Amino acid sequence: MSEEPAAGPKESPRGPREVWKKGGRLLSVLLAVNVLLLACTLVSGGAFNKVAVYDTDVFALLTTMMLLAALWIGFYLLRTARCPDAVPYRDAHAGPIWLRGGLVLFGICTLVMDVFKTGYYSSFFECQSAIKILHPLTQAVFVIVQTYFLWVSAKDCVHVHLDLTRCGLMFTLSTNLANWMAAVVDESVHQARSHSNASHARLAPDPERVGSQAGGDCPCATTVCQIFEQGYFYLYPFNIEYSLFASTMLYVMWKNVGRLLASSTHGHGHGHTPSRVSLFRETFFVGPVLGLMLLLVGLAVFVIYEVQVSGDGGHTQQALVIYYSFNIACLGLMTLVSLSGSVIYRFDRRAMDHHKNPTRTLDVALLMGAALGQYAISYYSIVAVVVGIPRDTLGALNLAHALLVIAQHTFQNVFIIESLHRGPPGAEPHDAPPKEPCLTFANPDALHTLPTCPPTPRLVGPQEAMAIMLAPRAHWRRRCLKDISLFLLLGNIILWIMPAFGARPHFSNKVEVDFYGYSLWAAIVNICLPFGIFYRMHAVSSLLEVYVLA
Amino acid sequence: MSEEPAAGPKESPRGPREVWKKGGRLLSVLLAVNVLLLACTLVSGGAFNKVAVYDTDVFALLTTMMLLAALWIGFYLLRTARCPDAVPYRDAHAGPIWLRGGLVLFGICTLVMDVFKTGYYSSFFECQSAIKILHPLTQAVFVIVQTYFLWVSAKDCVHVHLDLTRCGLMFTLSTNLANWMAAVVDESVHQARSHSNASHARLAPDPERVGSQAGGDCPCATTVCQIFEQGYFYLYPFNIEYSLFASTMLYVMWKNVGRLLASSTHGHGHGHTPSRVSLFRETFFVGPVLGLMLLLVGLAVFVIYEVQVSGDGGHTQQALVIYYSFNIACLGLMTLVSLSGSVIYRFDRRAMDHHKNPTRTLDVALLMGAALGQYAISYYSIVAVVVGIPRDTLGALNLAHALLVIAQHTFQNVFIIESLHRGPPGAEPHDAPPKEPCLTFANPDALHTLPTCPPTPRLVGPQEAMAIMLAPRAHWRRRCLKDISLFLLLGNIILWIMPAFGARPHFSNKVEVDFYGYSLWAAIVNICLPFGIFYRMHAVSSLLEVYVLA
Repeated sequence: MSEEPAAGPKESPRGPREVWKKGGRLLSVLLAVNVLLLACTLVSGGAFNKVAVYDTDVFALLTTMMLLAALWIGFYLLRTARCPDAVPYRDAHAGPIWLRGGLVLFGICTLVMDVFKTGYYSSFFECQSAIKILHPLTQAVFVIVQTYFLWVSAKDCVHVHLDLTRCGLMFTLSTNLANWMAAVVDESVHQARSHSNASHARLAPDPERVGSQAGGDCPCATTVCQIFEQGYFYLYPFNIEYSLFASTMLYVMWKNVGRLLASSTHGHGHGHTPSRVSLFRETFFVGPVLGLMLLLVGLAVFVIYEVQVSGDGGHTQQALVIYYSFNIACLGLMTLVSLSGSVIYRFDRRAMDHHKNPTRTLDVALLMGAALGQYAISYYSIVAVVVGIPRDTLGALNLAHALLVIAQHTFQNVFIIESLHRGPPGAEPHDAPPKEPCLTFANPDALHTLPTCPPTPRLVGPQEAMAIMLAPRAHWRRRCLKDISLFLLLGNIILWIMPAFGARPHFSNKVEVDFYGYSLWAAIVNICLPFGIFYRMHAVSSLLEVYVLA
Repeated sequence: MSEEPAAGPKESPRGPREVWKKGGRLLSVLLAVNVLLLACTLVSGGAFNKVAVYDTDVFALLTTMMLLAALWIGFYLLRTARCPDAVPYRDAHAGPIWLRGGLVLFGICTLVMDVFKTGYYSSFFECQSAIKILHPLTQAVFVIVQTYFLWVSAKDCVHVHLDLTRCGLMFTLSTNLANWMAAVVDESVHQARSHSNASHARLAPDPERVGSQAGGDCPCATTVCQIFEQGYFYLYPFNIEYSLFASTMLYVMWKNVGRLLASSTHGHGHGHTPSRVSLFRETFFVGPVLGLMLLLVGLAVFVIYEVQVSGDGGHTQQALVIYYSFNIACLGLMTLVSLSGSVIYRFDRRAMDHHKNPTRTLDVALLMGAALGQYAISYYSIVAVVVGIPRDTLGALNLAHALLVIAQHTFQNVFIIESLHRGPPGAEPHDAPPKEPCLTFANPDALHTLPTCPPTPRLVGPQEAMAIMLAPRAHWRRRCLKDISLFLLLGNIILWIMPAFGARPHFSNKVEVDFYGYSLWAAIVNICLPFGIFYRMHAVSSLLEVYVLA
C-alpha cells in the first residue's frame, strides 16, 4: 500500500525546499540496508550450530551498534535540536500518547530483562567473555536514552543537518531491527530446545554449544541463576515489541525529516484527546464485557494447554482440541464483529480523509505486511491437511482454524484500515466543499472595497448544521463502533498472549511436521510467527486509535 | 523508496473522483496476496521431495490461473476498453517501447520453450497425466493474449469497472508471479541436480521422483526427447524475465486505474523519442566499444568456466580463478564508471523532476529491492571468508568479489536513480519559475483590456536563452553520460548472462558450502540469486532509458 498521492492542504507548497529529497533518503536507506544485512548474516549464522559464528560475535556487533546509535542520539539532543529553526513544525499524527506509553512500558520490561540477563551471566563471571555482560548493560543504557529521545522528539519535523539526521535515524532503526532479529532468533532456539525431542533437534544447539552458552565448564547450577534464566526468557516478548515500537516511531521521524507543514493547521479530529470521564460511557458495555470474558477464558485455556502439553502424559491430543476449539470460537466471533463494523460503515456518510499522513500510511503497510506471516502459516497448514492422508478430528479443527485465521486477518484489516481513513465525527461529505471560507465576487474590483476576510472563525455551512442536528443518530453508530473496537482489541490481546508466551500447537499437532518434515516446518513457523505476533500487537495499538477516533 | 508526495502539475485536481481509492486497491491487493500465497505454498511444497505435493498439483493450479486471467483479459479487451470514456487518459511514462519490445522478445522465447516442453512431454504421452501437456499449451495461449493486451493497453488509465479492473490486473499479476516462482524453483531443482554430488543432493529429487518427473516407467531415451529437455532448460531465463516484465507493466497499469491526468500535458522530455539517425552519433564511441570488448571477453570466460567446471578433471580451481578475476575487473571498472557518472551530475545544473510518476517509482523500488538479493549473498560470503579458517588465493578473490559486488550495486543504483530523476536536457533550474507563461499586471483592471493569452507558444525566458547558448558545453556532458550508460548496459548484460545460463561459482567454490553446510547455503543462493539475475535485467532496461534521456 503506497502513499496517498494527493497532497492535502496540510502540505504547504511554500518555503525553502531541498533540491532533491529522494537523494538524501537514498543515502540513508543504503546505509541502513548494508548495516542490517551484515547484522542479519551474523545473527542467522549464529543460530545454526554447524556454522562457526559464535554468539560473542553477534553480541559484539550489537553492542557496537547500540553505542554508536546512542552517541548519535546524544548529538541530536544536544546539538541538532538546539539549532535555531531546527524543528519548525511538529507532526500531530506522529507518536500518539498510546504509542509512547507502550514504548515506555515495554522499555521498562526490557530493563528488567537486562537485569536478569546481567545476573544470569554474572553467575559464572570467571568463565565468560566480558562482552556477554557488557551487552545487557549497553542495552539498558541504549533503551533509556532512546526512550527519552522518542518521548520528546517523536513529532519533530527536523530541518537542519538533514543528511546526518536521516542517516542517524536509519542507523538507529537498523539497530532496533538487529536487536529484534537477535531476540527472535534467540527465542526460536530456546523454543526449539524445549520442544524438540532427540530426533528433531535441528535448530537446537548441540551439547557442546549449550555448554559454551551456559558458561563452558561452569554450568548454571544455583537456584538464583536458574530463576534469572527462566525470567529473561519470559521477558523476551516485551523486548521484541519494544524494538518494533521504536522502529515504527523512528521510521515516521525519518519520513518527517525536511517535511513542510502549514504550521497553524492541525489534523482535524485526529489530534483531539477525548475527555477522560466519558471514555467508557460512550460504549454499550457489550464489547468490553464480552471481550474481557474472552480474555479470561483464553487465559484459562492457555494455562490448561501449557500444563497438559508440558506434562509427560498423553494429554496432548486433548489439549490441542481445547486450544483449537477456543481459537475457532474466538476467531469466528471476531470475524463476525469485524464484518458488522464494515457493514456499519456502509451506512456512515462521513467523508474519507485523503490527507497525507506518514503515520497512517505506515500503520496500513505494517498491518498488511505483518498479516502475511499468519497467512503463510495458514496456507501451509491448509495444504498439509487437504493433501495429507490422515483425516481425523484434529485435522478438521486445524483446517477450520487455518481458514478462520485468514478470514479474521482479512476482515479485521479491512475494518481497521477503513476506520483509520474516516474523517472526524460529524464531517458529512460535501459535494462541492468551499475551498476558502471567503466569499467570491464576480466583480474583482469589489475585492478592494472589502477588508481581507479573517481566516480563523470558519463559518458553519448548511451541511454542517445538518450534521449537528443529526448528531443523536450518529451517536448510536459511534457507540457501536466503539464497542466493536474494544471487543476486537481484547480479542487481539489474548491472541497475542498465547503465541508470545510460548504456545506452539504448530509443533504439538503432528500434521504439518509429518507432512513437511521438521526442519522445513520449523523454518516456516520460526520465520513467519514473529510477524504474526507483531501483527496482534500492532492491531491492538491501531484498534485503540480506532476506539478514540470513532 | 516511496512515492514523491508532491502532486506535480500532471495531476489534475478536477474531475470526478472515487470516494476512496485505497478501498478499491485494498480489495485487489487482498485477492492477490491470497492467490499468491496459495501458489507459493504449493510451488515450494512441490520443490521438496519429502513433501507429498506433486508437480501435477502445481501444474493444475497454474493452468487454472492462466485460463482465468486470459478470460479476464478477453473481457477487458472486448467490454471494458470499449465502454464510452473507458480510457480518458493515457500515461506517457507507462510501457515505453523498449519495455514492450523486450516483452515481445521474451514472449517469443517463452513460446519456443512451450513448444519444447510440449514436445518433451509428448515423447511419453501414454504414461503422463494430461495436465503436463495441457500446461505448456495453456501457457502459450496466455502469453499470446497477455502480450497483445499489454502492447495495446499498457498506457491506459482505466475509468470504468474500477474494482473489476483492479482485481483482474492483480490476479493477472499474481499469475505471472506464480509462473515466475514455478520457473525459478524448477530451474533451481535442475541446477541442484546437475551440480550436486551424491552426499549433497538435498534439493534434488530422489530417484523415484526423477522417474515420475521424466515419465514414470518410460524414461526420456530418444535423442529428440533429450534435445527437447536440454532446450527448454536453456530457455527458462527468458520465461523468467517475461513474467517479471509483464508483472511490472501490470503493476503500473494497476496504479493508473482511476488516475486523473491533465489530458493535454505530457511529461516533458520523458516522452520524447530521439531521432534514430543520431542514436549512436551522440556518444564518443568509447563506452560502446569498451562495453562490447567486455561482453566478448566475458562470453569467452563464461565458456571456459563452464567447460572446465563440467569436465571431470581438476580444473575447477583454475576456472574459478579466471572467473573471479574477470568479474573483479568488470565490477571494478563498472564501479568507477558509475562513480564518474555521479561526479558529472555534480556539475550538472539541470533541475530535478519532482512530478509524480508511478513507472519511475516502481523502477526505483525494483532496483533497490532486487539488489538486496546480491547484497545478501555477498554478506554471507564475506562472513564465511573472514570468519572461516582457510585463507588462500581463492578466499581473497572471493572476498574482493563480494565487496565489489556490493560497491557496484550501490554506485550503479545511485547513478541510475539520479539519472531517472533529472529533468529534460537544457532545463536549467529556475530560482523562481513563472507559473504561467502569461504576463502579470499590478493593476487587475488591465486584464480586461487584454485578450486572454494563448497557452501554447511558450515564451523563451532569459534563463532558457542562456541554456541554448550554453548548449555545446552541455553537449559534452551529455555525450559522456551516454557513453557511461552504454558501457554499464553492456556490462550488466554479461553479468546477467553468466548466472542466468548456469554459472554457479557459489557451489564450485567450497568456502561457503563448507562454512554454512550445503542445505543452508543452497537455500540462501536459490532464494537470493533470482533477484540478483532480475536486477541485471532490470538495470539494463533502466540504463536504456538513461541513455535515451541523457
